Amino acid sequence: MHSIEQYRNAFISYLESKSLVQEPVNLYEPITYILSLGGKRLRPVLVLMATEVFGTDYKKALDAALAIEVFHNFSLVHDDIMDDAPLRRGSKTVHEKWDINTGILSGDAMLINAYQLFENYEGETFRDLAKLFSKTALQVCEGQQYDVDFETRDDVTETEYLKMIEYKTAVLVAAALKMGGIVANASVADQDSMYEFGRNLGIAFQLQDDYLDAFGDPKTFGKQVGGDIIENKKTFLYLKALEKATALQQKELSDLFSIQPNDPSDKIKTIKTIFETSGSAELTQKEIAAYTNKAFAILDGLELTPDKKELLRLFGENLMRRKV
Amino acid sequence: MHSIEQYRNAFISYLESKSLVQEPVNLYEPITYILSLGGKRLRPVLVLMATEVFGTDYKKALDAALAIEVFHNFSLVHDDIMDDAPLRRGSKTVHEKWDINTGILSGDAMLINAYQLFENYEGETFRDLAKLFSKTALQVCEGQQYDVDFETRDDVTETEYLKMIEYKTAVLVAAALKMGGIVANASVADQDSMYEFGRNLGIAFQLQDDYLDAFGDPKTFGKQVGGDIIENKKTFLYLKALEKATALQQKELSDLFSIQPNDPSDKIKTIKTIFETSGSAELTQKEIAAYTNKAFAILDGLELTPDKKELLRLFGENLMRRKV
Repeated sequence: MHSIEQYRNAFISYLESKSLVQEPVNLYEPITYILSLGGKRLRPVLVLMATEVFGTDYKKALDAALAIEVFHNFSLVHDDIMDDAPLRRGSKTVHEKWDINTGILSGDAMLINAYQLFENYEGETFRDLAKLFSKTALQVCEGQQYDVDFETRDDVTETEYLKMIEYKTAVLVAAALKMGGIVANASVADQDSMYEFGRNLGIAFQLQDDYLDAFGDPKTFGKQVGGDIIENKKTFLYLKALEKATALQQKELSDLFSIQPNDPSDKIKTIKTIFETSGSAELTQKEIAAYTNKAFAILDGLELTPDKKELLRLFGENLMRRKV
Repeated sequence: MHSIEQYRNAFISYLESKSLVQEPVNLYEPITYILSLGGKRLRPVLVLMATEVFGTDYKKALDAALAIEVFHNFSLVHDDIMDDAPLRRGSKTVHEKWDINTGILSGDAMLINAYQLFENYEGETFRDLAKLFSKTALQVCEGQQYDVDFETRDDVTETEYLKMIEYKTAVLVAAALKMGGIVANASVADQDSMYEFGRNLGIAFQLQDDYLDAFGDPKTFGKQVGGDIIENKKTFLYLKALEKATALQQKELSDLFSIQPNDPSDKIKTIKTIFETSGSAELTQKEIAAYTNKAFAILDGLELTPDKKELLRLFGENLMRRKV
């Protein structure tokens, strides 16, 4: 087994070796650009790690890892258009640097490129990877649609919210781990366990992202603290607070989530107090712990040597501590 | 063998049986909408016909045919956003009826849906269909990018133009025919001949579309006659005229292709005269005939019974007579 850092470096070297701009330049240059912006490379690292966990050389999984990363970046390019986002990882988004049409078309090409990378696998491996990929990619689209739909709905339930973050975020983490199992020709039961480990960890990760958006340390949290509150985003914290708060707090919450004041500092302060006094903050942390623990329980159930379980656990812990 | 009309009806029945709107409705409703707008269903008919030409029941090819049609409509949804087109087949485009974000996301889901339809095929058939599809889909994206690039270039060559229409239009016709061969497990040589038949026919078809855009009968040509001239589109007619015209005509052509008068009738008249007097109109017709003849020559070379060749020839002739 290798360290997370070694997997990441191996992946980045492979990505760079493959990033040749072809003709037409205006289609392929944006692809090279977005893929070179960096990021934690979480998903491809998971593919490589899962492959070695099942005793197969991670190098065999580099194309599957690249497919996952290309797909993830495809979804960022199209989502950034939809969100009208100017920046991605501190650099201009593709539609800002070029234009919306370039973002749409280069994104489409990336989705196809991701599928083509599976052609480097034979027989059933190719089929299993492509099938899992299609199912996952469609769920990511559905998750994005639910997210958009929720913006204009005020009757979103916690169950619906959890499904949304599962589709939008967790299934791709789950699929990355399962792909390692597919490349390594692991048993279907082991593949499915890896998937469930990733799915639970992914949900925990997104719930924590929501939590940190309100309560994170501005020094270490990568984004603007309070961003979700400013944008009236109905996260788990909000839905749980609505459920648990007093009638008076509920009204204040709803009222504050219908305005966008120029100076949001008072609003953020009040909302955070409601999140805390209603018990939502604590219950959200419990939910995060529950999904994390479920992920680790699944990991324990896998028939792997202790050092391999330890690496996966370490990855999960780092992820939840936000060091990865 | 069945008639073209029978294949079309069988395809439409299958499409309708599959068009169930799932959750989230805002993602899937636009897909059902665009697929129900009609159109000639050329590409799926070609898949079914090619399958039976090689002696296999066309019903086995319905999923491949649907994949091609879903992909074609995906490309229309995204292209319509890029072209800011308000209408498609006389109805509102997806991004007009909903919004641009819906058009982007529903389009993405369609591309994935198309891949999923190949999962209904086993082993090498699945692999061959998915590989051909990826290669073709990427070429369609590249063709669209070349088309966009050419708008702002004034040094486009005929060779480049022919490559653009080959990628943007012809390869999907070619792939439809080859997919029939794949489903029917035809020899690779026969599959490739079908592909070449389709590719040449597709180029001839697009060149004729350019020709009819200027010289078509307003009563029978589906679009506004002179549309390309109004939009200063550098079609084969234009490029050939630039090459063959006198210096004076060349200047007039360039000048007229840099303006967009409110009343374009004089411009259209002058340009058409230059297309004719320069010899471009005739040379374009010759080019159309050359590609059509090449397509039929490839067809003659295929080892098929005369009735099967006849059906494919009939399809090609109808297409070039614009009756299909």
